[in-house]
Amino acid sequence: LDTFTVAGKTFSSRLLVGTGKYKDFEETARAIEASGAEIVTVAVRRVNLSDPSKPMLVDYVSPKTYTFLPNTAGCYTADESVRTLRLAREAGGWNLVKLEVLGDQTTLYPNMPETLKAAEALIKDGFEVMVYCSDDPIQAKMLEDMGCVAIMPLGSLIGSGLGILNPTTIRIIKETVSVPVLVDAGVGCASDAAVAMELGCDGVLMNTAIAHAADPIRMARAMKLAIEAGRLSYLAGRMPKKSYADPSSPISGLI
Amino acid sequence: LDTFTVAGKTFSSRLLVGTGKYKDFEETARAIEASGAEIVTVAVRRVNLSDPSKPMLVDYVSPKTYTFLPNTAGCYTADESVRTLRLAREAGGWNLVKLEVLGDQTTLYPNMPETLKAAEALIKDGFEVMVYCSDDPIQAKMLEDMGCVAIMPLGSLIGSGLGILNPTTIRIIKETVSVPVLVDAGVGCASDAAVAMELGCDGVLMNTAIAHAADPIRMARAMKLAIEAGRLSYLAGRMPKKSYADPSSPISGLI
Amino acid sequence: LDTFTVAGKTFSSRLLVGTGKYKDFEETARAIEASGAEIVTVAVRRVNLSDPSKPMLVDYVSPKTYTFLPNTAGCYTADESVRTLRLAREAGGWNLVKLEVLGDQTTLYPNMPETLKAAEALIKDGFEVMVYCSDDPIQAKMLEDMGCVAIMPLGSLIGSGLGILNPTTIRIIKETVSVPVLVDAGVGCASDAAVAMELGCDGVLMNTAIAHAADPIRMARAMKLAIEAGRLSYLAGRMPKKSYADPSSPISGLI
Amino acid sequence: LDTFTVAGKTFSSRLLVGTGKYKDFEETARAIEASGAEIVTVAVRRVNLSDPSKPMLVDYVSPKTYTFLPNTAGCYTADESVRTLRLAREAGGWNLVKLEVLGDQTTLYPNMPETLKAAEALIKDGFEVMVYCSDDPIQAKMLEDMGCVAIMPLGSLIGSGLGILNPTTIRIIKETVSVPVLVDAGVGCASDAAVAMELGCDGVLMNTAIAHAADPIRMARAMKLAIEAGRLSYLAGRMPKKSYADPSSPISGLI
Repeated sequence: LDTFTVAGKTFSSRLLVGTGKYKDFEETARAIEASGAEIVTVAVRRVNLSDPSKPMLVDYVSPKTYTFLPNTAGCYTADESVRTLRLAREAGGWNLVKLEVLGDQTTLYPNMPETLKAAEALIKDGFEVMVYCSDDPIQAKMLEDMGCVAIMPLGSLIGSGLGILNPTTIRIIKETVSVPVLVDAGVGCASDAAVAMELGCDGVLMNTAIAHAADPIRMARAMKLAIEAGRLSYLAGRMPKKSYADPSSPISGLI
Repeated sequence: LDTFTVAGKTFSSRLLVGTGKYKDFEETARAIEASGAEIVTVAVRRVNLSDPSKPMLVDYVSPKTYTFLPNTAGCYTADESVRTLRLAREAGGWNLVKLEVLGDQTTLYPNMPETLKAAEALIKDGFEVMVYCSDDPIQAKMLEDMGCVAIMPLGSLIGSGLGILNPTTIRIIKETVSVPVLVDAGVGCASDAAVAMELGCDGVLMNTAIAHAADPIRMARAMKLAIEAGRLSYLAGRMPKKSYADPSSPISGLI
Repeated sequence: LDTFTVAGKTFSSRLLVGTGKYKDFEETARAIEASGAEIVTVAVRRVNLSDPSKPMLVDYVSPKTYTFLPNTAGCYTADESVRTLRLAREAGGWNLVKLEVLGDQTTLYPNMPETLKAAEALIKDGFEVMVYCSDDPIQAKMLEDMGCVAIMPLGSLIGSGLGILNPTTIRIIKETVSVPVLVDAGVGCASDAAVAMELGCDGVLMNTAIAHAADPIRMARAMKLAIEAGRLSYLAGRMPKKSYADPSSPISGLI
Repeated sequence: LDTFTVAGKTFSSRLLVGTGKYKDFEETARAIEASGAEIVTVAVRRVNLSDPSKPMLVDYVSPKTYTFLPNTAGCYTADESVRTLRLAREAGGWNLVKLEVLGDQTTLYPNMPETLKAAEALIKDGFEVMVYCSDDPIQAKMLEDMGCVAIMPLGSLIGSGLGILNPTTIRIIKETVSVPVLVDAGVGCASDAAVAMELGCDGVLMNTAIAHAADPIRMARAMKLAIEAGRLSYLAGRMPKKSYADPSSPISGLI
């Protein structure tokens, strides 16, 4: 069986999904179920996790069924991120976290110096850190050397849906680090997800591509299948590319 | 249920596969089964369909289970093609056929004038013609007007594995004709197949991408899922592409 | 000197430009001058070539300075095209012509069967035919065999500015035919023009990219330089592409 | 006149070239002359600048004619880089420098944390720093805020010739910083250079694309023209892209 292990826990789904941007928690729950995801990220600064007088995510998406991955969406400094995750750990006991320190509100591109600083502090503090980062193979290696348990480079800007803009750097990161590499951000449609997997990545995390599709539930199913298809396509070893058809074989051109 | 109808017959799989280029008929049979295909193309000039002293395709891939689609692989003129399909009809009773008239042995690009001529003759002769053609929207429309039951433009050269080189023309063909549009030739990996479906095509026909993968059976499964993923992704209506992330929404950037 | 010969006439500029879509004839003239073009195409059905009471192109763009290439823009059948060019020959004595037979008003994609028919008739009638066509290597070869003096495949749809969508087919056409190959239609900016030349093409014909730029005169100069740059880049023989930098050389990485 | 100013000095050429990887200094000199470059980079750790018993670059490429830009090619730490440039300043009086701190010998990708550290030290020490960096808009802005006089993101890996792999990040960097943005590394042919300029960049630095072309002198001329073409194309304001041709205009399709 083709499984995927991060921080000692083994999962059979390689699709991780966000919980935001949906119409309501019911839609969130149905989309997540359709996606087959086992890990869901939660923006702990934004999602209501404690006030029972308002709708609560946990009533729709059960932490017993899914591995909750608290993230630091909306944090722009190492300090903010570390503080946010400490509070999350106190509240929910979560130790496996997704760190993201953003550079600015326009691009949501990662702030790498603050990301490195925050990762160091969090690891020292006992967290297991999956880390959103730029597609920089050198800094990806630094994050691994520091002890991060997964490297999560962006395919393109968060919420852009532009796909994997630079397959070369993603592939180099995958060849450089030993911990799982998950493309985080940028996927817009099923073929984008398949491309990420065909590059050899261990998984993909997405939110907007599903939540902002015209039909999120159907897109969640599309993404589930695309991740599996891309993974199998990678494992199967694709045919070589040729500029011209090869007529030398007696059955060339036979379709 | 999302089905696909050609020449009055309805299919649930949108993946059509070739039967050539495999190690042996056993591998052919296993790959086809893994692909979930319901229609298989057969190069009637090359495959042994009548001499029981040699291995026969039909002993491995049953015409009772699969719709056999005789094709004219290896034909370079309208005459050859028409003759080949008449013989096939006499031998196997096949009326639904795939016409391909190739331009030369180097590129295997379709010869469109001969293709138009052959299509006309075959339709007059009572055949139901699915037709391999260039990605030319005007000639695609001519083939439909003539009575072809499916238009099958190449994504790139047969056996090249270069994917869908010109998505614009494929999309225009799909918007122009009413009969099913199937991408035929060029797909090399799962994401290519998903791209074809996301353009709105009704299906994909492939052979080399599966047969020449390092592990054809696994690639066949990859392709099955990729076709389903791409179809769902198309139907679900993808998120809009944005150059920049949009920070105006209160939950923007939440993943 | 790197010249380019078509129908026995030698030119030093490899950029051919249209004369339509400008604000007025004065702008047309200035843009053409800036482009360095020696051949200009003229839509003989649309441009006033005979009524001296209205502005006339020839008063701004002199047929003594430029080789006028009458074209059949707006013709949708072989008959119309042939008739149009016969009238043009009677009026202006032009024998070297650009044939274009369009498929429909929406895409302006060539109608290839009508194009082949018209080319045959025109050549029989003594014309020297440069021919706008699809990027189909087989039909390109037919047009050459028939006697066309230049093959002019589209890079993408007329007026689309999408660039060279399928470099593979353009390259195959160039490797297949012996007469000059000129990319006609699709170029939107300077880099597109350079790409066409780097594929080995003999020249490029454009109109909208210059006429609909914010500053047509400046874009005309850009295109002049881009054509020269692309040609030199092709002749110079580009460096090989590498997935990774090669550190084995003692001066690798030295910039 | 369209000039380009860095560190208070104004240049008319937007093409910067390296001096390494050529057959000999004579070829270096001829290629640089053909390129029209006014700024040349020199790997001060590798090029003989002081031993008159061996061939010296300065005898072929005069520092009186060209602005020499010492670079730190081959340095993998901030310390090494700073030391190298201090020695260069002592030897040649050069104050305007190009900093590059590489991440590893395989990819030659920049080490961004060391780059930030080195830039800070150099600026404090009175240098004017042009800086090779990743295509990370946030760190590009940090380098500008720190006082760097030019931001030089890679288009793709040094020596790869893969072109501008991620036009989106390059464009965002250009929109984010105020000092000149020069694409450094990755350009392989003339159209790549034009693309960089069409993104709005202020210039391009290249070495391998010229030095490793089959005919470096001719490629140098190609690059000179491509940079000018791309710049003009950017300034001229390209036509809008359209999926379809627009037939509504009376002269649509007129070429």
